[in-house]
Amino acid sequence: MSKIPVMEIFGPTIQGEGMVVGQKTMFVRTAGCDYSCAWCDSAFTWDGSGKDLIRQMDATEIWNELTSLGGVGFSYITISGGNPALLKNMSSLVHLLKEKNIKICLETQGSKWQDWFLDIHALTLSPKPPSSGMETDFQVLDKIVDRLAEAGAIQNGSLKIVIFDDSDYEYAKMVHKRYPALTFFLQVGNDDIVTENRQKLMVSLVDKYESLVEKVMIDNEMKNVRVLPQLHVYIWGNKRGV
Amino acid sequence: MSKIPVMEIFGPTIQGEGMVVGQKTMFVRTAGCDYSCAWCDSAFTWDGSGKDLIRQMDATEIWNELTSLGGVGFSYITISGGNPALLKNMSSLVHLLKEKNIKICLETQGSKWQDWFLDIHALTLSPKPPSSGMETDFQVLDKIVDRLAEAGAIQNGSLKIVIFDDSDYEYAKMVHKRYPALTFFLQVGNDDIVTENRQKLMVSLVDKYESLVEKVMIDNEMKNVRVLPQLHVYIWGNKRGV
Ligand code: SF4
Ligand code: SF4
Repeated sequence: MSKIPVMEIFGPTIQGEGMVVGQKTMFVRTAGCDYSCAWCDSAFTWDGSGKDLIRQMDATEIWNELTSLGGVGFSYITISGGNPALLKNMSSLVHLLKEKNIKICLETQGSKWQDWFLDIHALTLSPKPPSSGMETDFQVLDKIVDRLAEAGAIQNGSLKIVIFDDSDYEYAKMVHKRYPALTFFLQVGNDDIVTENRQKLMVSLVDKYESLVEKVMIDNEMKNVRVLPQLHVYIWGNKRGV
Repeated sequence: MSKIPVMEIFGPTIQGEGMVVGQKTMFVRTAGCDYSCAWCDSAFTWDGSGKDLIRQMDATEIWNELTSLGGVGFSYITISGGNPALLKNMSSLVHLLKEKNIKICLETQGSKWQDWFLDIHALTLSPKPPSSGMETDFQVLDKIVDRLAEAGAIQNGSLKIVIFDDSDYEYAKMVHKRYPALTFFLQVGNDDIVTENRQKLMVSLVDKYESLVEKVMIDNEMKNVRVLPQLHVYIWGNKRGV
């Protein structure tokens, strides 16, 4: 079987953000990203700092590690990265999980289509706003959204934009208008990824969440929108692998 | 047109809990409940203390008030109570909102079926656990779930159980097993509905959320489960009408 570059496998824990926020899930984090966002909270997957953690694993090996950690207590897997959509052979894991009756949640910036997207239960497309320093290729994103729609799977997809500043907010508005059929999430950016004082971090994040909520509430162009924080950061702060 | 007993109309704000958590929405709260839960956070809808607030309004009057508050900036309405499912003539409002292309979220304990449930986009059934002091009529709840399934609308429904103590948790498990087809939410009970110190409340609620998450993570019988806090309480504490 072909190998997938795995950065970490952990859980069960909760999915702290996006369309299945709160879901009990295992995590598989892959290595490698075609972006290098200024505020990436998992830069160790692509900047070389985590290269000793990478293991080349086939689908069966990943499954064995998932069950050795999670036993029989899970029915949901989140695949994250990096950008897991870079991996064509992710199809092997996706198909194995389907066989085992496991639902899959996956997040990608939407810079690449893969046919196995159609077997993902909750596919979050998270194009990156200006503050990331990245440029969105809207032709690729259009194609992804079109293919989901053609396959009748649009309800399995959603858009999520992380907001750090006003130009990110304007970008989010533009994306929302471009893809009105997709459930649309706004997420508060966490620009403090070092503070380990959980209580201080919590209060400052709730304040930021409140500001974003208030902005959306008075904005007539933001109607069918969901505004969410990152719940795992409320609980665990900036610790990794929980 | 027949009249609906309205307790309050407010928004736009966010839906702080359940299956569309984070959604920008207007709220219509109806008066009257067939339960009297020990920890009801909207007892003013049924215990007489809010009776001077009740207005008998027809669907058009409700719509006019919604638009005068929310302008053109909303596309989602949450109908809450009390128990809005007591009102057969809620159909008039539901149909008017459908005409206007507004999606509807509604929560009820599941003690009564109404045909207009089939026009609700996000129907949360929230049967009450032992700590409420109430008894669930599972025959009625079975019927509601069966009817949703027959109409092919099961994905529009979800179950939400509020957890205050261990026996509530056992009750939740039993409900989850009884209705495996429904998306299942666990919500942390807020037993402090008087503290106005927002920061103190926030920290204590996140701690309770963490405890519930940890309980679910090690429980093999709780697999396809979503655990959520009440986000509006994080932001606004125990204030009403925001
Ligand atoms: S796309 Fe995601 S993983 Fe890649 S650099 Fe940006 S934030 Fe990091
Ligand atoms: S069912 Fe809801 S509104 Fe009625 S008493 Fe219980 S908590 Fe309050």
